[in-house]
Amino acid sequence: MTDRLTVTYRIRATAATIAARAQSVAVEQSVEMPVEAISNETVLRDIVGQVQDITDRDDGSFNVRIGLALETIGRDAGQLFNMLFGNVSLQDDITLEDLSITPALAKIFAGPNIGMDALRDRVGAPRRAFTCSAIKPQGLPVAGLAELAARFAEGGLDFIKDDHGMAEQSYGRFANRVPAIAAAIRATGSKTRYVPSLSGDLDAMRAQLRVATGCGLDAVIVAPMLAGFSTMQTLVRENRGFAFFAHPTLGGAARIAPDLLIGKLFRLLGADAVIFPNHGGRFGYSPATCQRLAANATAQHPILRPAIPVPAGGMTLARVGEMLDFYGREVMVLIGGNLLLARERLAAASAEFTRAVAQHSYR
Amino acid sequence: MTDRLTVTYRIRATAATIAARAQSVAVEQSVEMPVEAISNETVLRDIVGQVQDITDRDDGSFNVRIGLALETIGRDAGQLFNMLFGNVSLQDDITLEDLSITPALAKIFAGPNIGMDALRDRVGAPRRAFTCSAIKPQGLPVAGLAELAARFAEGGLDFIKDDHGMAEQSYGRFANRVPAIAAAIRATGSKTRYVPSLSGDLDAMRAQLRVATGCGLDAVIVAPMLAGFSTMQTLVRENRGFAFFAHPTLGGAARIAPDLLIGKLFRLLGADAVIFPNHGGRFGYSPATCQRLAANATAQHPILRPAIPVPAGGMTLARVGEMLDFYGREVMVLIGGNLLLARERLAAASAEFTRAVAQHSYR
Repeated sequence: MTDRLTVTYRIRATAATIAARAQSVAVEQSVEMPVEAISNETVLRDIVGQVQDITDRDDGSFNVRIGLALETIGRDAGQLFNMLFGNVSLQDDITLEDLSITPALAKIFAGPNIGMDALRDRVGAPRRAFTCSAIKPQGLPVAGLAELAARFAEGGLDFIKDDHGMAEQSYGRFANRVPAIAAAIRATGSKTRYVPSLSGDLDAMRAQLRVATGCGLDAVIVAPMLAGFSTMQTLVRENRGFAFFAHPTLGGAARIAPDLLIGKLFRLLGADAVIFPNHGGRFGYSPATCQRLAANATAQHPILRPAIPVPAGGMTLARVGEMLDFYGREVMVLIGGNLLLARERLAAASAEFTRAVAQHSYR
Repeated sequence: MTDRLTVTYRIRATAATIAARAQSVAVEQSVEMPVEAISNETVLRDIVGQVQDITDRDDGSFNVRIGLALETIGRDAGQLFNMLFGNVSLQDDITLEDLSITPALAKIFAGPNIGMDALRDRVGAPRRAFTCSAIKPQGLPVAGLAELAARFAEGGLDFIKDDHGMAEQSYGRFANRVPAIAAAIRATGSKTRYVPSLSGDLDAMRAQLRVATGCGLDAVIVAPMLAGFSTMQTLVRENRGFAFFAHPTLGGAARIAPDLLIGKLFRLLGADAVIFPNHGGRFGYSPATCQRLAANATAQHPILRPAIPVPAGGMTLARVGEMLDFYGREVMVLIGGNLLLARERLAAASAEFTRAVAQHSYR
């Protein structure tokens, strides 16, 4: 017998068509050929996907659980996504909804290097929610970015991340930008952690990590949908002292349920913190989606450390209290552009943000 | 003045709201912060996205053209996708529709290494359409896969590709599988090219390319959505003698127009051949989408070589004539599982396929 992962798809179909459609998905996501053309018994028994369960959602769609052989995934994160949703992502009646993270799967990918508790130690936040902001815009000279970072650090924020648009542009090379910004933060004497954004291929990201290590940093951001899943997997393994923040850019989660993609799969790949669009901001996620996403990121797991949910995307100081009541203490509040509106009052606005989180009385 | 790329989005909105919504997209895909918090004149002039044009589609949506600064992309393919559709992919009122491939952009990414004409020379197909099939299923012992490949080659097919599900599984390592299959094809004396599938991170793919080179191969498949765009860009640059086939797995093209993603962007990244789901097969693309995709792949361009459209996904021998009339001669016909149904008649079925393409009289 082979180990199987249980994968849940939502499929639009009628009661008359769902059984055949479910079977076609099980075949597409495993052998991708007519089963009647296969004579090898091992393939038929251990490799072909198996429909395990079909449940009517009573809305013109069904939840279909399919058992995929763990062996088809090997040990590679790219192949994991290929098997979960590769070809059927091109069919428009189906979304990927959930995945059982079995012990065997969790051991292969291992999840966050650091985890929430150790990150609390790093920034001195034993119980409260974390705070975070972002330096931007891209195109601002490095001295200007370093200046913003220093003001955020003076205000006592836990984490300052690069805007995810900062890459290796002519106006801001990582090797020039990151040491200057790290030095500006260090000069404030604060515990604030700087989290620069990685870009390019694996070689480029390794070089960037060497620069970050040289600056004494211990956290970076990577965008799994841009970098490639295997790239992220390798970087997490090669840099066990680093926390990885996952940025959801290009996540276009219309076809993969966002609570699965960002909350569960990015954690599985090794994200210590998962950034996602909070409800009521610039993006379209509902409160229920955000709640499920945060629950997936933080759920107790026998092997995987918890990841920190980082709701973001147009958040404001005025929303801090409501967000803390919604997410509790296992959250990192990220306010970006809205803090930057304070301009010359940036350190003071950052300090207000820091206080609002530290002094919140939960409902 | 900065060079700008013109990017076209389709946005659901009303006449009353579209101007503000278009402006918000221009900001999100460039500086991602309130413009009123920016004082730097260079950023305001050269970095912030500019709404160039808004056209009512008369279906509750608008085409919005936005000029994005080329400088924000640097020279990296991951950052290209980040700037084109990164954050707005998370908003559900918007799809990415088109992109102007300016000479400056084409020079950065350079497109296919080989191009359609040189591939015609390689397989001896000066004017007709190309033929292709796939060996599968994964899990079949290597000897069985090599046997299938030999039958396809005896039938005279131009290209034999790995099923995209074949990666580095315990039952089929690249380093064992590929030399055996290449040798089986070579033993037939045919001009057939074997196209193995790359998987894993950049290091793993480089090792696989060394194996392929050692076997005398000159083409590989990569899945850009799994590998990461920058990974593909680097591999294309490092292996100028190789043709790259792009597999659309995980393309989930509901949010990026498939003719753009597969036909235009995969070509820009360096795909010599772009595999896509043909209309009327297992996937949901319309004939019009397929036509636009093929046109994007083959359109004359002053810098980029043409890529070959490879319609696939449940194709049959019976459809060859209709497909050739639809796509013309600038196409590679890929029949996979359906040929495998011929079982012990596989070489004969492959020869029928070869003949059907060679002897087709176009309408």
